[in-house]
Amino acid sequence: MINKNAFRNLSYGVYVVSTLDGDRPTGCVANSAMQITSEPATIAVSINHDNYSNACIEKTGKFAISILTEESDPGLIGIFGFQSGKDVNKFDGVEALEKEGLSVVADACSYLVCKVINKMETATHTVFLGEVIAADVLKEEEPMTYAYYHKVVKGKSPKNAPTYIAEEEETVQKEEKWVCSICGYEYRGEIPFEEVPEQFVCPVCKQPKSVFVRK
Amino acid sequence: MINKNAFRNLSYGVYVVSTLDGDRPTGCVANSAMQITSEPATIAVSINHDNYSNACIEKTGKFAISILTEESDPGLIGIFGFQSGKDVNKFDGVEALEKEGLSVVADACSYLVCKVINKMETATHTVFLGEVIAADVLKEEEPMTYAYYHKVVKGKSPKNAPTYIAEEEETVQKEEKWVCSICGYEYRGEIPFEEVPEQFVCPVCKQPKSVFVRK
Repeated sequence: MINKNAFRNLSYGVYVVSTLDGDRPTGCVANSAMQITSEPATIAVSINHDNYSNACIEKTGKFAISILTEESDPGLIGIFGFQSGKDVNKFDGVEALEKEGLSVVADACSYLVCKVINKMETATHTVFLGEVIAADVLKEEEPMTYAYYHKVVKGKSPKNAPTYIAEEEETVQKEEKWVCSICGYEYRGEIPFEEVPEQFVCPVCKQPKSVFVRK
Repeated sequence: MINKNAFRNLSYGVYVVSTLDGDRPTGCVANSAMQITSEPATIAVSINHDNYSNACIEKTGKFAISILTEESDPGLIGIFGFQSGKDVNKFDGVEALEKEGLSVVADACSYLVCKVINKMETATHTVFLGEVIAADVLKEEEPMTYAYYHKVVKGKSPKNAPTYIAEEEETVQKEEKWVCSICGYEYRGEIPFEEVPEQFVCPVCKQPKSVFVRK
């Protein structure tokens, strides 16, 4: 018997994994990153084949991890997690730092730049093993865990995330609420959602008020 | 420049990874486990070559992950993380459940049993990719994160963990304290440590009062 709710107790962070598409920076959101060895320091990160970043990491042989914090603008998750780098320059308007030729998110507590030294293929994801070539702490804030994102920001997983299916099976809560149909952000403002000005945009994915649905 | 403190902002859980040594159950503590694919569900787990469990997983082709919680007995970390399964039967005295032929820790919020379908070797660790063959939720408690273990239980990493070196570089705190020299547990009882009865044992690794050192 496989109860997929069991998987939800695994702990993850929330990361922007960035690389280059030719000269243009691109990236995606990932939860699955972990340190593997300490000398030399290596990090494994799992990226869906359907993410544009996967092919770009393959080509450039480098990736960077920006570790988001509880204070990071949740809009970063919308920018990097809910649109494709094939269509837009995700770093447009995002404050970034250049590290070893890659762009990392400035609104993060740490970054790590890695060069790919190995990989493992699976049915839907590539696990890239990267040797760390640069890393630093940017600010002292609590790293955002996936549990925090899920409970506090109340977002859902991009559809390429391994956690996607488990979440769809989640028991629906009783209370009525307004939820962004694009990224799952749950409106929790003081005034009733119906009275929110029409210029309102989703704080996570920046979509207009009209994409919100009552649940 | 590689500042290893940057790595400490990656988020992890605290897991007992168990397998079989012949007919005898054995296991170790791991922080590095993550879901890779959802259909079929697969999990990657990273185990040091020096951990006896590594060779045992290699032989049996199966492992189980028990996800510890904030309420789990921290002594489990001492039992599975600070001694070798070569010398002792780690499951002696541990309440366990039999799942698909493997022992899982009963004092956990979830378990996942996996059969190894791929692996990636690194300098010091094997990353095993396991297809989940059984999984369930055991109780509704907050999963223990590595950050919680570090901050609240105040334990340190077993020396085979990839996080080990980073921790050794940690800035030493000013306040005097009594710390277990075996597992790093910091005494925080109400009465001064000097007045604690001689029968006191470390709640994490069960070593006697005499192994505590003033820091």
